[in-house]
Amino acid sequence: MDEIDPEVTSPPLHMTPDEFRRHGREIIDWIADYWERIESLPVASTTQPGDIRALLPAAAPEEPEPFENLLADLDRVIVPGVTHWQHPGWFAYFPANNSPPSVLADAVSSGLGLIGLLWAASPALTEVESHMLDWLVDLLDLPDHWKTTAGGGGVLQGSASDATHVALVAARHRAAERSTQPATQMVAYTSAQAHSSVEKGANVAGFGVVRLIETDESHAMRPDALASAVQADLGAGLVPAFVGSTVGTTGTTAVDPVRATAEIAIEHQLWHHVDAAYAGTAMICPEFRHHQDGIELVDSYVFNPHKWMMVNFDCSAFYVAEKAALTDALSIDPPYLRNTQSDAGNVIDYRNWQVPLGRRFRALKLWWVLRSYGASGIRQMVRHHVAMAQELAQRLSEDSRFEIVAPHPFSLVCFRCRAADASPAAHDAADSATDAIAAAVNDSGLAYLTPSKLDGRSIIRVAVGQSRTDRSRMDMLWKLISEAAV
Amino acid sequence: MDEIDPEVTSPPLHMTPDEFRRHGREIIDWIADYWERIESLPVASTTQPGDIRALLPAAAPEEPEPFENLLADLDRVIVPGVTHWQHPGWFAYFPANNSPPSVLADAVSSGLGLIGLLWAASPALTEVESHMLDWLVDLLDLPDHWKTTAGGGGVLQGSASDATHVALVAARHRAAERSTQPATQMVAYTSAQAHSSVEKGANVAGFGVVRLIETDESHAMRPDALASAVQADLGAGLVPAFVGSTVGTTGTTAVDPVRATAEIAIEHQLWHHVDAAYAGTAMICPEFRHHQDGIELVDSYVFNPHKWMMVNFDCSAFYVAEKAALTDALSIDPPYLRNTQSDAGNVIDYRNWQVPLGRRFRALKLWWVLRSYGASGIRQMVRHHVAMAQELAQRLSEDSRFEIVAPHPFSLVCFRCRAADASPAAHDAADSATDAIAAAVNDSGLAYLTPSKLDGRSIIRVAVGQSRTDRSRMDMLWKLISEAAV
Repeated sequence: MDEIDPEVTSPPLHMTPDEFRRHGREIIDWIADYWERIESLPVASTTQPGDIRALLPAAAPEEPEPFENLLADLDRVIVPGVTHWQHPGWFAYFPANNSPPSVLADAVSSGLGLIGLLWAASPALTEVESHMLDWLVDLLDLPDHWKTTAGGGGVLQGSASDATHVALVAARHRAAERSTQPATQMVAYTSAQAHSSVEKGANVAGFGVVRLIETDESHAMRPDALASAVQADLGAGLVPAFVGSTVGTTGTTAVDPVRATAEIAIEHQLWHHVDAAYAGTAMICPEFRHHQDGIELVDSYVFNPHKWMMVNFDCSAFYVAEKAALTDALSIDPPYLRNTQSDAGNVIDYRNWQVPLGRRFRALKLWWVLRSYGASGIRQMVRHHVAMAQELAQRLSEDSRFEIVAPHPFSLVCFRCRAADASPAAHDAADSATDAIAAAVNDSGLAYLTPSKLDGRSIIRVAVGQSRTDRSRMDMLWKLISEAAV
Repeated sequence: MDEIDPEVTSPPLHMTPDEFRRHGREIIDWIADYWERIESLPVASTTQPGDIRALLPAAAPEEPEPFENLLADLDRVIVPGVTHWQHPGWFAYFPANNSPPSVLADAVSSGLGLIGLLWAASPALTEVESHMLDWLVDLLDLPDHWKTTAGGGGVLQGSASDATHVALVAARHRAAERSTQPATQMVAYTSAQAHSSVEKGANVAGFGVVRLIETDESHAMRPDALASAVQADLGAGLVPAFVGSTVGTTGTTAVDPVRATAEIAIEHQLWHHVDAAYAGTAMICPEFRHHQDGIELVDSYVFNPHKWMMVNFDCSAFYVAEKAALTDALSIDPPYLRNTQSDAGNVIDYRNWQVPLGRRFRALKLWWVLRSYGASGIRQMVRHHVAMAQELAQRLSEDSRFEIVAPHPFSLVCFRCRAADASPAAHDAADSATDAIAAAVNDSGLAYLTPSKLDGRSIIRVAVGQSRTDRSRMDMLWKLISEAAV
């Protein structure tokens, strides 16, 4: 035992309540000011590598610093190094649109400081989460048997990547029950257009083979190609174990045929996971639900309220059709976590639904967003974004300089400059012209979009979904694109 | 393409700035009030399963609800279902002690709403994180080569479980480079007293064998037993790939011999990961550093600022000695994430250091806590908690009704009722008496501790570390224990 000075007394660890109230108001005002002036800031930071670190002292302070210094450094150090995801000109990647009630709920969550490792560790954290995930089943018309009150259930994960990874672990666990082959002989299938998280999750989970299945002209996975690949792998003595289909791929929001894929998955006992990370929110509107026809046949599903539902990161909704299939793969029961309610089996311990043990109260922000906007408000937001994206697509399609390179069923539009002819040289020139438009738009500071590649050719992704984006910003974007095009 | 109504316009999605300022102040006040009245609340919720859900409507609202309803439901629905981790009577599990500046920083992070998937996606997020992790290397006297400016580096993960899991994945990846055996033939070693996250992480990563190594009388891993197990597994044709040692186990804060374990790990090419989730914070005080003698020889290390450093969850600091060993195991490069700075290799893309792609600005709260308290303030807090724990141990050791069951080098004290004699019946009676004390203390609402098992016998863990805990609460706890004992 180390020598302890018994005279050590409590340090002045806390701001007094009055100081917290005062500084808290300063922070609320800072956030409100930030949102009010965000349009005046360039969307993307022009910081060079190392610029921000150069502003920071080499070592932590030995003595306390006043709060005023912290606040001042938000503007001095942080804001210049920020690429503003909440800017109305955000068209990059996918959105991560937060909202005032979500931010306030998250502050309450931080203030409560709960860790929901078990139901007993804070019952409200678990029960509100289960309830919100059940609400979403109804709102998005997901299968009833995914409700926590039925055989399946939902859980909030940190990200779609985390959810997809645990789906892969559950798939591996299920396959190991019917095969003595190691994971290195197991195969995970997904489309060549699927998000990298499927391949990454499969690597992390130790799958030996990941097959990226050919897509059709709409960039959707071809079920016939999937079926052939499964047959070939079975013939080679491998163990087909998992298929990931996507409703709204990251590349182009392509929609894989869920029902046809499910039929193959069921025939060959593949775990079928659906990644609807972005597009899942759209299912709150009935007119989009045909895109996930067959969803009642799949094993797991993920969508991110933190992308397009105005809930700030992190909040990823993950569902399984059979909860035991997940918890069998992830449960460990040490003595310091045993408790009456868990032993009785009449509560959900979400630690057995995820890799981490600890978890914060993420459902609070989902609850507040759903109540603040109501289902009607979220529907209206989705339709507004989709309408603006379709209007952009209309402008692009009416201008002979551009071509739209993929279907655009939601609010992502992918386009490129049209090649003058079919020659490689003309396509190379179109690539350069496309890249130049992306650079010009991004350099403007008024909008920020993602240059990408499709079938080896340069494209531009315009993801409409920032909650502050309006038609005036869409007009501005169109003007930037149009003026930068040759 | 779905039919879109071009007349759809932006919904009233945002509180006006004035409304956000007003409701934000209400939230700040609510949090301040909560902290001020927390002592008047029973530490643990007495909610029964289903009680909270019964208070919630069966379906989400179709129309928006006013903010006042949300605020009112915090007190009506949430607080009764909360077990108060920020209560000064919190002695359960380990603490998760938040602090006012941490909560305010986290609110800023939510308001900024950044997703740091790449350096380019918000340079400040990545650079402040790297810088804070380098600050901590100096503050905790960790090896210099773990700095991001050297060959190693630190990253913030969501939890120690996540960090341990990726360490296991990196270990598996490294072992696969020298062996053709699948992961099912790989062995992960850790002590029988290690946290369940090691066994869980190994299962999730697909390790075929997890060996829980015998501990000595201090509950520390026995290096001779580890060496024997490795030899036996090598003889059996298995692939020893990972060893996890712990500085401050969850059960009793036992300290595994890091240097002796490292020597075995190096000899047999095991990835050596150190879990100092709780105790790591103590290393800010030089007098505790001898407990991790040999740390410069290990491959990875995790400690949780969200446990004992007043940074609210989630904030887990994970270090690797060689960054390429981690990123080789976790990198995937899709076209929509390619960018100039990443391609040039002169920035850190933390997505390649973790399973998820997205990540929030967690370093902000670490920065604010380090500056608000200074190193001296955190040292003072640690010493204060350790002193109070040692004083409790002193009281227990001077009372013949109790026995302390494990060394208590930090601020966790484990004890049980002393058996009247060495007979099993006497030990059974002591178990019951111990369980009764735990129940009485927890039922009091004044303190909350964790009943657990050690060597098959009931014990009580008292984890001192809540930032609001003071000597008056320790006196109250001692009175409760003493009065409940027979």
